[in-house]
Amino acid sequence: MPAIELTGRAAAPGLALGALYRLAERAGPRRVAGTPEEEAAALTTAIASASAALIAIMAEAEGEGADILEFQVAMLADDELAAPALAAIGAGIDAASAWRAALDEAIAGYRDGGDAYFAARASDLEDIRDRVLAALDDGEAGEPIVPPGAILVGRDVTPSLFLSVDWKAGGAIALSEGSPSSHVAMLARARGVPMVVGLGSLPTSGAAEAIVDGDGGRLILDPDARAKSAFARGAAGAADRAVVEAEAARLPGRLADGSPVRVLINVAEPEELDAIDPAICDGIGLVRTEFLFHSPGGLPDEETQFRAYRRMLEWAGERPVTIRTVDAGGDKPVPGLTIDGESNPFLGTRGVRLSLLRPEIFRIQLRALARAAPHGNLKVMLPMVTVPGEIEAATRLLDAAVAELAAEGISHMRPPLGIMVEVPAVAVVPDLYADAAFFSIGSNDLTQYATAAARDIAAVAPLCDAGHPAVAALVANVVRAGERLGREVSLCGDMGGDPRHLPALVAAGLRAVSVAPRLVGRVKQALAAIGPDGAA
Amino acid sequence: MPAIELTGRAAAPGLALGALYRLAERAGPRRVAGTPEEEAAALTTAIASASAALIAIMAEAEGEGADILEFQVAMLADDELAAPALAAIGAGIDAASAWRAALDEAIAGYRDGGDAYFAARASDLEDIRDRVLAALDDGEAGEPIVPPGAILVGRDVTPSLFLSVDWKAGGAIALSEGSPSSHVAMLARARGVPMVVGLGSLPTSGAAEAIVDGDGGRLILDPDARAKSAFARGAAGAADRAVVEAEAARLPGRLADGSPVRVLINVAEPEELDAIDPAICDGIGLVRTEFLFHSPGGLPDEETQFRAYRRMLEWAGERPVTIRTVDAGGDKPVPGLTIDGESNPFLGTRGVRLSLLRPEIFRIQLRALARAAPHGNLKVMLPMVTVPGEIEAATRLLDAAVAELAAEGISHMRPPLGIMVEVPAVAVVPDLYADAAFFSIGSNDLTQYATAAARDIAAVAPLCDAGHPAVAALVANVVRAGERLGREVSLCGDMGGDPRHLPALVAAGLRAVSVAPRLVGRVKQALAAIGPDGAA
Repeated sequence: MPAIELTGRAAAPGLALGALYRLAERAGPRRVAGTPEEEAAALTTAIASASAALIAIMAEAEGEGADILEFQVAMLADDELAAPALAAIGAGIDAASAWRAALDEAIAGYRDGGDAYFAARASDLEDIRDRVLAALDDGEAGEPIVPPGAILVGRDVTPSLFLSVDWKAGGAIALSEGSPSSHVAMLARARGVPMVVGLGSLPTSGAAEAIVDGDGGRLILDPDARAKSAFARGAAGAADRAVVEAEAARLPGRLADGSPVRVLINVAEPEELDAIDPAICDGIGLVRTEFLFHSPGGLPDEETQFRAYRRMLEWAGERPVTIRTVDAGGDKPVPGLTIDGESNPFLGTRGVRLSLLRPEIFRIQLRALARAAPHGNLKVMLPMVTVPGEIEAATRLLDAAVAELAAEGISHMRPPLGIMVEVPAVAVVPDLYADAAFFSIGSNDLTQYATAAARDIAAVAPLCDAGHPAVAALVANVVRAGERLGREVSLCGDMGGDPRHLPALVAAGLRAVSVAPRLVGRVKQALAAIGPDGAA
Repeated sequence: MPAIELTGRAAAPGLALGALYRLAERAGPRRVAGTPEEEAAALTTAIASASAALIAIMAEAEGEGADILEFQVAMLADDELAAPALAAIGAGIDAASAWRAALDEAIAGYRDGGDAYFAARASDLEDIRDRVLAALDDGEAGEPIVPPGAILVGRDVTPSLFLSVDWKAGGAIALSEGSPSSHVAMLARARGVPMVVGLGSLPTSGAAEAIVDGDGGRLILDPDARAKSAFARGAAGAADRAVVEAEAARLPGRLADGSPVRVLINVAEPEELDAIDPAICDGIGLVRTEFLFHSPGGLPDEETQFRAYRRMLEWAGERPVTIRTVDAGGDKPVPGLTIDGESNPFLGTRGVRLSLLRPEIFRIQLRALARAAPHGNLKVMLPMVTVPGEIEAATRLLDAAVAELAAEGISHMRPPLGIMVEVPAVAVVPDLYADAAFFSIGSNDLTQYATAAARDIAAVAPLCDAGHPAVAALVANVVRAGERLGREVSLCGDMGGDPRHLPALVAAGLRAVSVAPRLVGRVKQALAAIGPDGAA
């Protein structure tokens, strides 16, 4: 029988071959139902037991993992979650059915609300649902025990299940549903666990092993000798490449003629830096500050922000660190900050638009940034700038924050304020934005707006292509304006980390890219083969 | 007491002063409830009675009005609408409460689904709800009698109420909610009834008369002498301007130096043409064909489309008529055609993207267009083109449709195939699109994509500005490419009908605009004051 190959969406890179482990859907309730009072007590006890189990796992988890469990504990502690179930119990329904129905409705709301962030969080609710159901069933909130090195397949994986698996021995995840922006996908990328989502219906019955190709978004069931040999070659090649790229990463970025290209890194979480040697990069070209705003504890205070920024500045030493003010909205909603229900969130109140709408929240971030500035080489940039007036307004708020700190006698510096160039209008007439201290081209958003094709709609993915000649033309236009105005121009989207696009960027005159840390070596290798005119 | 002025959104232009007529919210049920069987029978009878009343009004309505009533009758005939109410009746709820709850839920679903089209249709459901409730109350489905010339104020107005009013005597509509894209707003624009929506809470108690400013989106309650005198001046000025503009419309479009500018018209419904003299324009620059796809009868067949296209070609005679293939999707969903639930519909599967995804539906439109072509001077254009491959694919489908008609011996011609330039990438590198027979710049979409600010999100409306210098720069880029390639370039968005933007468009080299029919005179007047360099 030939191997069955299924294609979904890549969620975490890497290759893995292993025995298949199917996640069973939970069965229905097995308890005999009691009186409404007994059922209500059983549910309350089960919730407490599930919380306790989560807190126990939290004690062993770190970083993002602990945050996710903290988020689940916070949700379990929210009386509103259990209220519909308790009401149904009062009406004579058994605890398990009532809880399942209440959570399924909440999950469907998260999943179908048209909001990518909440849809990605639905698996957290599933996790909570199943833990409480398990606690109702047998008095404890257990997880299935996944053998090390297994290929997990199922509809979706809960974060706590992910955290309960020992991934050091290898293994991978392949899901019929799921999302590349789910908590589990973030964890998988951070831990180096290959993951594929959105495979559709999975004909896994009978299959015994599988290969997951987390770069190509593929699952190969019962691989034959040929598929296994291709896997072995791929894995060996990847290991070889990793060695070569690690060596290349330590060299300075240069074109074929030896002229320099700055290669910086993009960072989404301070913890990422722990495993990275600052010597491989020319600094941090983009710090996404959204991580601070997704804590279950609500919006971050000034001290929390200050410490996170300082930590990154201290890591980088004299190298520049460009921190982007919060780019919430779009596909990154933040409870208490972003506006729900906009018809087209990518074309709505996001980035600096939102920050200017909520100056009381923006002010805290600007104060924290100015306080962190003396601890390194800080640059601050504004996302989604559309008109010059937004730079003026943000400048006024930064100046006000600086004046406040001075009046309060708190140590601070005023960092230079630059802008992301990701709204096409800015890339078309960049000279109008001379108030910006620097330009950083956000190629992901620039591409989706220039092609009018959303990054997260699969049906138009072929159109949302940074290889469209218009994107390179806009980059060239910004580079020329930077030369005229004496402003540094860099690029911090995925385009800069993709060797296929580097010749066009070099030809456009770009000499600074900021990329994912794991791509630094690959990018430097590719640059070394490109002439200053972009030709190989 | 000074006049109270409220500001909302303009939904239909014009000025009106009149006595206030408040639309009361319907009261609760007054009937005494019977057995579930009696209640089910009462509901069924009330639905039939409401249908009959609608059909009676339909007999007197015309065009769009009749279509809306037909839509409502079709909805009432749909068993799924009543099913939840009948289920609730079975569970012991009275007919009126059951119907109200079922319809309120459906209305909320329409309104909150994040879909502008369905939100706009919610008032049709309210209409149906209230008619059936009225029929349950008193055995007949009546309307309040609105005195002629009154200013209707309320939460929202139903289409059948609108159609029951005699608007010849004047009057206007001012709503606390509502939408400029609702059926009633379309009717109001067609009938010349000034209308303002989204005024928020309306403190109308006590007020006796009001002025509605349908251009400025304002409602003035209890206008004082000063407001009334401003109204009289405004109304007189508008009347004077209308006379002057009607005269200007009959002259050819020319700049101050006498050089020609083509002024064409945009048409959304064939019925609009009945009141327009073809001599005022250089042809139809844009026919929106979506009207054909919004019939409650489903997608239009070839014959229906052919007749509609032929009618417009015959109206125009030798003048060119540019028909745009269906631009469904975005804010224009079409049941059975468009894809529901995309995260950002404006950046999703719309325009030619959708047509190429549904070639069996596209084929019917292309056949109908080729059949209509011998009846006038037809040009066909594709909306939302992003890559040259889309022109190639559409060309192949058009050639195939033409070959089919030839094989079938059906009269036809192959019209030239041009493109809308509304995706920024196309405006940045237009030379790549030389396969297009002509370029028509869609300034509304080009502006929203270039500024990454949706046309329908109020919070970013100030950013979605055709006056951004990037838009004129992109227009100039397309005009220059048209000269190099020998392709006609025109512009068919609202920018071309706005005298504030005409100098920039003329300076960009543009010499053809297509505008709303009522703006032809105003545009020609404005052009006559502009030099060929765009200076006054």
